Amino acid sequence: MELKVYLEKKRAIVEEALDRFFPRPEGPASDVIEAMRYSLFAGGKRLRPILCIAGTASVGGDERDVLPVACALELIHSYSLIHDDLPAMDDDDMRRGKPTCHKAFGEAVAILAGDGLLTEAFHLMGRKDLSRPVSSPALLKVIPMIASASGYQGMVGGQVVDIQSEGKEVEASVVEFIHTHKTGALITASVVSGALIGGGSAGQIESIQSYGQKIGLAFQIADDILDIEGDIRTLGKGVGNDERKGKITYPSVLGLDKSKEIQRAMIKGAVESLGSFDHRADPLRDIAHYIIERKK
Amino acid sequence: MELKVYLEKKRAIVEEALDRFFPRPEGPASDVIEAMRYSLFAGGKRLRPILCIAGTASVGGDERDVLPVACALELIHSYSLIHDDLPAMDDDDMRRGKPTCHKAFGEAVAILAGDGLLTEAFHLMGRKDLSRPVSSPALLKVIPMIASASGYQGMVGGQVVDIQSEGKEVEASVVEFIHTHKTGALITASVVSGALIGGGSAGQIESIQSYGQKIGLAFQIADDILDIEGDIRTLGKGVGNDERKGKITYPSVLGLDKSKEIQRAMIKGAVESLGSFDHRADPLRDIAHYIIERKK
Repeated sequence: MELKVYLEKKRAIVEEALDRFFPRPEGPASDVIEAMRYSLFAGGKRLRPILCIAGTASVGGDERDVLPVACALELIHSYSLIHDDLPAMDDDDMRRGKPTCHKAFGEAVAILAGDGLLTEAFHLMGRKDLSRPVSSPALLKVIPMIASASGYQGMVGGQVVDIQSEGKEVEASVVEFIHTHKTGALITASVVSGALIGGGSAGQIESIQSYGQKIGLAFQIADDILDIEGDIRTLGKGVGNDERKGKITYPSVLGLDKSKEIQRAMIKGAVESLGSFDHRADPLRDIAHYIIERKK
Repeated sequence: MELKVYLEKKRAIVEEALDRFFPRPEGPASDVIEAMRYSLFAGGKRLRPILCIAGTASVGGDERDVLPVACALELIHSYSLIHDDLPAMDDDDMRRGKPTCHKAFGEAVAILAGDGLLTEAFHLMGRKDLSRPVSSPALLKVIPMIASASGYQGMVGGQVVDIQSEGKEVEASVVEFIHTHKTGALITASVVSGALIGGGSAGQIESIQSYGQKIGLAFQIADDILDIEGDIRTLGKGVGNDERKGKITYPSVLGLDKSKEIQRAMIKGAVESLGSFDHRADPLRDIAHYIIERKK
């Protein structure tokens, strides 16, 4: 399968760049750097950086230009997992088959490791020493856009509604709010930031944004479904967690069949958004399908 | 006293801008926005934004240009207080005479409010709709610099060493590391970012940086001393907290007299750093003296 090779290749590029860009644990604050590295290199799919790379390629950009931003997106994703896992939040002990950050380093260091990853993302995006020069206007669009997608208008907003809805009866609009904000916003920002740095036209950016919003929602619905139908060995975490915690999910609100139907419609719509793009958008098209076929 | 009028005038400008830039609590995520506002508008001195404004004025810049960055610095400061107060960190119940954020909103919302403030800072700095256009190269220097000062190389690094040193015997180099990182780095970044946006020359930036480092250290030593000699009614928080918690402070490591001596040397050095600046740097000179004379 060609996409598998693509994902593996891009993942290797992202891993190498993350390791190169990220500090070693040294100096008096080495513990927090170690905790940051522990979570950052815990073996994620690197979906957000790969979407950023595929987004820039789709408009004819050079992937080397987006590597700092692509890696910054992974830092933000990694911070969000550390804070989500905290005892006061989802209270999870395991993540990707390993103890969560606060289990391994204690709660104080875990909170700070999350803070450090989030902050370092904005340092990394602006570092002058890393890549060939990215256009300043593009970068100055990308930075506030990613911040907005991560904050109260995006991920933080989705997470607060998520934890506040636990165990409650909610309407479909609430689960849609949670999913589009908690996961969808950063996924959309990932692919759009790639296209912006790649020099995409306003029309292209609009299409890419529509693509991102649709796969973002489909991705989170797929996560919900994996929590019901997934294999604990493949996932590296327990299944049935959402139900036990009374989490608001698409299947819990709309049922499994309806959720899968929405998911399919999202993927179809996402691919249609790319109608005017040539073969350079093929990775984005393939990733859309992969999102609902993945096993972890 | 002229400085008092200056500080009051600039504080009013910052309050007005913060309120104008910051979202109202509405929509499904209104709780986290309310928590963010609760801590942000709890009546701080707004020292960092004022330093940013005074920094830009010292090199002939216009303070209206720096307001978004100045306010972003206060958002970052406010986030750091929320996370520092958490039960897993300093476990404080009161801040500025009011219950701390997690006491008022619960731990989960407080963690997210901190995350939201930190993230919104980087959104705010890049917002195109707020101020007259700031030079892109200056802004692209300022954003990663502020991120670096806030992260593992700055505030987060200082905080982790601070909590890990509690109750231990440490050398003077450790308390210097804590203070220069936990407080000094963001104070330095505040005044330097103002000077950068104001169009300061390389030599001026260097002088301003030296000024910032010195007042940053003096400021934290002053905080340590206030915790011993301060008045609980003026401070809005308990005194003697540091000693009770076994906090590493300048007085605890070097004694009160030596601490005051270092503080005075820092202020003298800070003012000397501004030797080549004209009267437009007078607010910075006055603020240096105010830092060790303040009562809260």
